[in-house]
Amino acid sequence: MRRWLLPEAIEDILPNEAARIEALRRRMLDGFRGHGYEMVTPPLLEYVESLLTDGAHDLDLRTFKLVDQLSGRTLGIRADITPQVARIDAHLLNRAGVTRLCYCANVLHTRSDSLTATREPLQIGAEIYGHAGIEADIEIIRLLANTLALADLSTTRIDLGHVGIFRALVNRADLDDDQVEVLFGALQAKDVPTLNALTDGISEPVRSALRALPDCYGGSEVLDKVLTLVKDDAEVAAAVADLRQLAAALAGLPVSFDLADLRGYHYHSGVMFAAYCARHPNAIALGGRYDNMGKVFGRARPATGFSMDLREVVRLSENGGEAGKILAPWSDDPALQQEVARLRAAGEAVAIALPGHDDSWREAGCDRRLVKHDAQWILEALN
Amino acid sequence: MRRWLLPEAIEDILPNEAARIEALRRRMLDGFRGHGYEMVTPPLLEYVESLLTDGAHDLDLRTFKLVDQLSGRTLGIRADITPQVARIDAHLLNRAGVTRLCYCANVLHTRSDSLTATREPLQIGAEIYGHAGIEADIEIIRLLANTLALADLSTTRIDLGHVGIFRALVNRADLDDDQVEVLFGALQAKDVPTLNALTDGISEPVRSALRALPDCYGGSEVLDKVLTLVKDDAEVAAAVADLRQLAAALAGLPVSFDLADLRGYHYHSGVMFAAYCARHPNAIALGGRYDNMGKVFGRARPATGFSMDLREVVRLSENGGEAGKILAPWSDDPALQQEVARLRAAGEAVAIALPGHDDSWREAGCDRRLVKHDAQWILEALN
Repeated sequence: MRRWLLPEAIEDILPNEAARIEALRRRMLDGFRGHGYEMVTPPLLEYVESLLTDGAHDLDLRTFKLVDQLSGRTLGIRADITPQVARIDAHLLNRAGVTRLCYCANVLHTRSDSLTATREPLQIGAEIYGHAGIEADIEIIRLLANTLALADLSTTRIDLGHVGIFRALVNRADLDDDQVEVLFGALQAKDVPTLNALTDGISEPVRSALRALPDCYGGSEVLDKVLTLVKDDAEVAAAVADLRQLAAALAGLPVSFDLADLRGYHYHSGVMFAAYCARHPNAIALGGRYDNMGKVFGRARPATGFSMDLREVVRLSENGGEAGKILAPWSDDPALQQEVARLRAAGEAVAIALPGHDDSWREAGCDRRLVKHDAQWILEALN
Repeated sequence: MRRWLLPEAIEDILPNEAARIEALRRRMLDGFRGHGYEMVTPPLLEYVESLLTDGAHDLDLRTFKLVDQLSGRTLGIRADITPQVARIDAHLLNRAGVTRLCYCANVLHTRSDSLTATREPLQIGAEIYGHAGIEADIEIIRLLANTLALADLSTTRIDLGHVGIFRALVNRADLDDDQVEVLFGALQAKDVPTLNALTDGISEPVRSALRALPDCYGGSEVLDKVLTLVKDDAEVAAAVADLRQLAAALAGLPVSFDLADLRGYHYHSGVMFAAYCARHPNAIALGGRYDNMGKVFGRARPATGFSMDLREVVRLSENGGEAGKILAPWSDDPALQQEVARLRAAGEAVAIALPGHDDSWREAGCDRRLVKHDAQWILEALN
């Protein structure tokens, strides 16, 4: 076999891409830190029960399992970091007030999310725990827009949704869990014939409202439409009020609504959002409220946050790679060593030409070299 | 079950430790970059055959295996990054000249290396490919000393060894592979009775030389001793000459010799080294030559490098954690927003007090707050 072959949807990150990812990773983490978010790094491996919050069938299928030699128990490699951060907030930090956390680390997926997606995304995200108000959602969506701007990505659209609308409708329709699952699947696929068949026996106005959801995307007229279809439903009215308040506070951002986009529905509990940018059909970042996730770890806390795949962001970003390096000769001359140290301290990359290999500067990315001129070491262009 | 329990030797990294790791990670990677090393990030997952270089039985036992749903083949989670970087140099970059690479990423081990070691080290390291001369070893050991200094760790000792001495002796002793393995094990354990029994049938001067190896640590008198015991052996003489040249070039560093310390013997091919620092009995960093590793990937290249566990380095380092944050009120006042933006741009962490949670500043790590004073937003100490 050819030992250098990699598994499907698994790639090496080579120097140019690695430098761009590293630079953006730092800018984004610095941005989080500047907003008071504290970094945590949960482990790659956990007991599989800890990684899978209740009802997360999809996450289960995407999680690699292996056996722990030390305990004989089944371990999982995390496919998502958010449940781990919720565990840290609920159990380890155990603070009473608002806790802002962020992270940047790899996850692994048994299969890729799309034809182009890697099975090893570099998940970066931020979360607010301990605040149930809309202000936390406002802060987190503003932070998301800021974070995407750091990548020089122009966010073309931030779609807002609210899981409360779908939940309120299916509660009134009196469906069992399996029926809700099938209905949810049809809605995600925007499969209108199936949706119509499934809702056939449901009484009005819920039937019409469920059938209308796939078309409920666009401006604030979408919210008016829902309120017209479902009058006097406190839950629906509250969700619509949240969305209106959110949109008003996010003036200046390209906000619109999509009430049928319920990705992550299983763990979300309120406002949800998805950010889109130019030249990319799929959402570049996803987020929303997930107030109940901490419960399985002993403490339900209000929570809202977002995450994205930093590798995908870098692929879409225009940000450049590394600057050229400087080649310096192998020499004990103290004046040279002083100049090399000065250049390195100033942020330059200075590679020493090891004896016998002075000619490989081009492939090593050097565009200047240090030469001695009138007893002074000076920079000279290489080409 | 208690879902927040983590597997043995697997830990969360909480905010204070995460901030220290992140800060040191950046300093070390910047140091590598300044020396002309280019970053690469190989994948966490590969076909298991690619991860295991020939004869790496120990690495095999430490590598978690799982099944790829897409191919039905066995995958491994890397337990070491060096073989992956050798694959990238040999196959992907495919440069003719000197190639300097560095990396910082997680590995997983099925069992921990010692009682205190984690099963999820954060391996950071640097490698030079394509240069067979001692100059590359000199550069890499100087870089290691620089890198440890960035952590404010005082390197108490850098032990130099050379796999060529042991190889030359066992070649002359005419042992089969199994016998060499047992002998190697006894030497690593400094198990003198077993060593004496195993070497009983070996003729002089090899017998005495093998028996003397466990005591061959200390200053340059160790090298004299080996040459006295084994005269006229070209391989041993060449190894000793390498070690002398290396020690001379590393003047200023606390260099000593240990000729029996052969960790990584299976993949090393020449000079080996181990760095020690105060308050830690085990080596903090290991490295050496491994000229043949690229062969299984299609191209044997001279190679030398080192690596260490950044989490362990941070545990030993005195470097402090994060500075305190600034608390700012939730307000639309443009003057406040301007001041918050200014402070964030200056590197400060400014957390907004979300409505109703103004009292949780202490647990969030705030030590100052912004207050309005004579129409100006100013900083005030919190305590």
